[in-house]
Amino acid sequence: MFESAEIGHAVDKATYDAEVPALREALLQAQYRLRSEARFPVLILINGIEGAGKGETIKLLSEWMDPRLIRVESFDTPSDEELAHPAAWRYWRRLPPKGTTGIFFGNWYSKMLQDRVNKRIKGADLALQTLKAQRLERMLCDEGVLIFKFWFHLSKAQMKARLDSLKNDPLHSWRISPLDWQQSKTYDRFVRYAETILRRSSRDFAPWYIIEGADERYRSLAVGRILLRGLQAALDATEQPPAPAQPHTAPLVADIERLSLLDSLDLTQKLDKDSYQHQLIEEQARLSRLLRDRRLRKRGVLALFEGHDAAGKGSAIRRITGALDPRLYRTIQIAAPTEEERAQPWLWRFWRNVPERGKFTIFDRSWYGRVLVERVEGFCSPADWLRAYSEINDFEEHLTDAGIVLVKFWLSIDKQTQLKRFKEREDTPFKRFKITEEDWRNRERWDDYASAVADMVDRTSTEIAPWTLVEANDKRFARVKVLRTLNEALEAAIAEK
Amino acid sequence: MFESAEIGHAVDKATYDAEVPALREALLQAQYRLRSEARFPVLILINGIEGAGKGETIKLLSEWMDPRLIRVESFDTPSDEELAHPAAWRYWRRLPPKGTTGIFFGNWYSKMLQDRVNKRIKGADLALQTLKAQRLERMLCDEGVLIFKFWFHLSKAQMKARLDSLKNDPLHSWRISPLDWQQSKTYDRFVRYAETILRRSSRDFAPWYIIEGADERYRSLAVGRILLRGLQAALDATEQPPAPAQPHTAPLVADIERLSLLDSLDLTQKLDKDSYQHQLIEEQARLSRLLRDRRLRKRGVLALFEGHDAAGKGSAIRRITGALDPRLYRTIQIAAPTEEERAQPWLWRFWRNVPERGKFTIFDRSWYGRVLVERVEGFCSPADWLRAYSEINDFEEHLTDAGIVLVKFWLSIDKQTQLKRFKEREDTPFKRFKITEEDWRNRERWDDYASAVADMVDRTSTEIAPWTLVEANDKRFARVKVLRTLNEALEAAIAEK
Repeated sequence: MFESAEIGHAVDKATYDAEVPALREALLQAQYRLRSEARFPVLILINGIEGAGKGETIKLLSEWMDPRLIRVESFDTPSDEELAHPAAWRYWRRLPPKGTTGIFFGNWYSKMLQDRVNKRIKGADLALQTLKAQRLERMLCDEGVLIFKFWFHLSKAQMKARLDSLKNDPLHSWRISPLDWQQSKTYDRFVRYAETILRRSSRDFAPWYIIEGADERYRSLAVGRILLRGLQAALDATEQPPAPAQPHTAPLVADIERLSLLDSLDLTQKLDKDSYQHQLIEEQARLSRLLRDRRLRKRGVLALFEGHDAAGKGSAIRRITGALDPRLYRTIQIAAPTEEERAQPWLWRFWRNVPERGKFTIFDRSWYGRVLVERVEGFCSPADWLRAYSEINDFEEHLTDAGIVLVKFWLSIDKQTQLKRFKEREDTPFKRFKITEEDWRNRERWDDYASAVADMVDRTSTEIAPWTLVEANDKRFARVKVLRTLNEALEAAIAEK
Repeated sequence: MFESAEIGHAVDKATYDAEVPALREALLQAQYRLRSEARFPVLILINGIEGAGKGETIKLLSEWMDPRLIRVESFDTPSDEELAHPAAWRYWRRLPPKGTTGIFFGNWYSKMLQDRVNKRIKGADLALQTLKAQRLERMLCDEGVLIFKFWFHLSKAQMKARLDSLKNDPLHSWRISPLDWQQSKTYDRFVRYAETILRRSSRDFAPWYIIEGADERYRSLAVGRILLRGLQAALDATEQPPAPAQPHTAPLVADIERLSLLDSLDLTQKLDKDSYQHQLIEEQARLSRLLRDRRLRKRGVLALFEGHDAAGKGSAIRRITGALDPRLYRTIQIAAPTEEERAQPWLWRFWRNVPERGKFTIFDRSWYGRVLVERVEGFCSPADWLRAYSEINDFEEHLTDAGIVLVKFWLSIDKQTQLKRFKEREDTPFKRFKITEEDWRNRERWDDYASAVADMVDRTSTEIAPWTLVEANDKRFARVKVLRTLNEALEAAIAEK
């Protein structure tokens, strides 16, 4: 794989000097067009052999282009806030917004490579992590992010020569850390695992570019040209990203006898007032006790609520929070994304609100809006919501991998009950703010929502993050079921170890 | 001061039950009006004696009002990211945006009070910190933040009774931490210092409300009513905040002989090419060496650039970054604030970009836009930019208190030089993006900008954060002066200890 990058590519000074001015100008123009159109961001991953010119190339790009529109992020030791979140959180929080360029120097590839070289992980882990990186990149790319992955290469002999010359240069010798020298000794392992990673993760939507790093002029021109062509092509493309050649247009479920998942719920289930009072207090006390369990301190808890309008999400959430110290939980109400959120991949606004270790976050509506309201109302394309199922499953795997206890509720009522509650709301001054024109409009799409919910549950109720369907015609029954389910999930999590 | 809060206020159940429904409804209405108008946020500070019902009141408010529009923030142990920033950063990052309510449970007052009770700080420090808190609140208030400060009080006897009853209640005994018990022993000290703090920090724009905490119904009604009246009054006020009764309208400087500060610069200073090359490389090497000095690792570095259009800010910045590993610095280009930034006090977008310990941040334009372009173009009112001088000085004191080395540059050119550079830019395809209609418009206001710059320097060049005026007609001279000044500031900082 690295053969072409060990043949001694070089560019003479005259050729270099002749090409650079036009290249710089074109790069700058492209960068300004990128900013003014602000349709997508650029993400550049920098990896490779020590001494192969990674840092120098970034410096050069900062000189050639406008450094104020480029943000270089290096990921060394994670902060304690980063350690308290799922591993990918530190990358998500630094993603470049649309119109700008982010350079990730030290990224998921450097992490997995270092871990493998230093025997902290095994081959199977490396394979799994490479796969996960690929899925992340696929998602970013589908969201319009233009990804460049550069691998700077040197043959073993070239590297030794390069490190020696740096060592003797008083101005640059500080660049060589002990770790780098150590890598020089483990060059073979490093290159072997790198090859595996590159082979597995070079895909049409985010290919690796291997750059021979020995000759500075060659290296600089190569990177500059690749960036320019990639940028220009993306800017000229009318749409980001191209639709798949064969989009799936068949319905997700063969909807033969019109019996939907939601129809199968027994909505007549009830609780009388006395049993309710008794069970509610019992479950609240249990929740308060469980959340203070020391064994949960290393984990986060995330409960999300979706449901029909007027199904009682808000009042169920209040029965949870009513039991708790307000410092222990956060409630996130999902509304329209802000400008900063719209400049990022759609999952970004959920990533930024993921609970840290030891904390409890309640989402009132959630990322499932993508496959519910956005699908039904046509706010995103079918291609977008179709891919969202797997994006959501990946996202939730990140959460559960980090030990987060994830509990998902769909609160279901029937059409008559909704009508009754809408009217009640309109008649009670106290509740009038809760009912809007939009609620009435959504109601007309009842069946479309039912299909969307069925597909959602079929495709995202997984063993790591199952859905709980809550029969909510009777509010008392629903509240107790929510609390009890949450408590059982916490108990199961505590019992895990 | 606490006399009225020890007389045994109580509300009977009938009165309470009669008032609460209307109070709840009105609070909810106000909360929804707050959100829909989104003109200002509400900040509630909760302090007081242990056991006086702080937590219970927050819980109650979350039940009475819509908890999704309230965010409760507790500030216990700072994270390492928070410790790596100026002390106030952790409060700034959690300020509620316009239209929402933030409850700060454990805030600057709890910090200073605990520190004083536990003898970590002396009386003079307490006085100073109370003063600083007041300045912060004054600024927030001027930015439209509606602040409520609640002190929940109990007499010594009431507290002992309360803690005993909690101890015997198996459901609530967990609430009493060892620290709280310890506070029970130090009640006298606690109350004495609290009195000092409250007396000094109760101001018209952010008064303390002292609530007797013994009777739950009294406490709840009192807080609910205060909140409601305050909220309604603020919502009904046509303007936030009221203008001072006696605004200053005299010019800031008696502008008698029209000689401005900028006119006094010797813009003929030059460097020939050879001296420039030599000195540039020398200063760059020095900078690279200084920034790697271990003694700077506990400090941040912040360099900001203001200057005439086309004065060469960008190219001066590139001479700094050219010497550095791109992982060591960040460049922030200040443009129009985003939606999330507009929902916060004006300094918020600068606070979020303050460098952490060991990092170097370069601001290309800065918070001084407030007293330059915003003043000259009328983007904010005279009252706003007049108060900005002291707000900026306070902000910079926060930075330097945290050990940040702050270096401020104004790059100055004369009118003819600017004209020459504007035309050059228009003639060079490579540089055309740099010149806009706006630049030509700004040029017409040359004298207004000159006055604004003179006022800015007069009012914000302080011993902790002096301005450096850079004669920039000759770019070579300017770049070397910038680098040298920065280096000297770093050397001085290193020498400090």
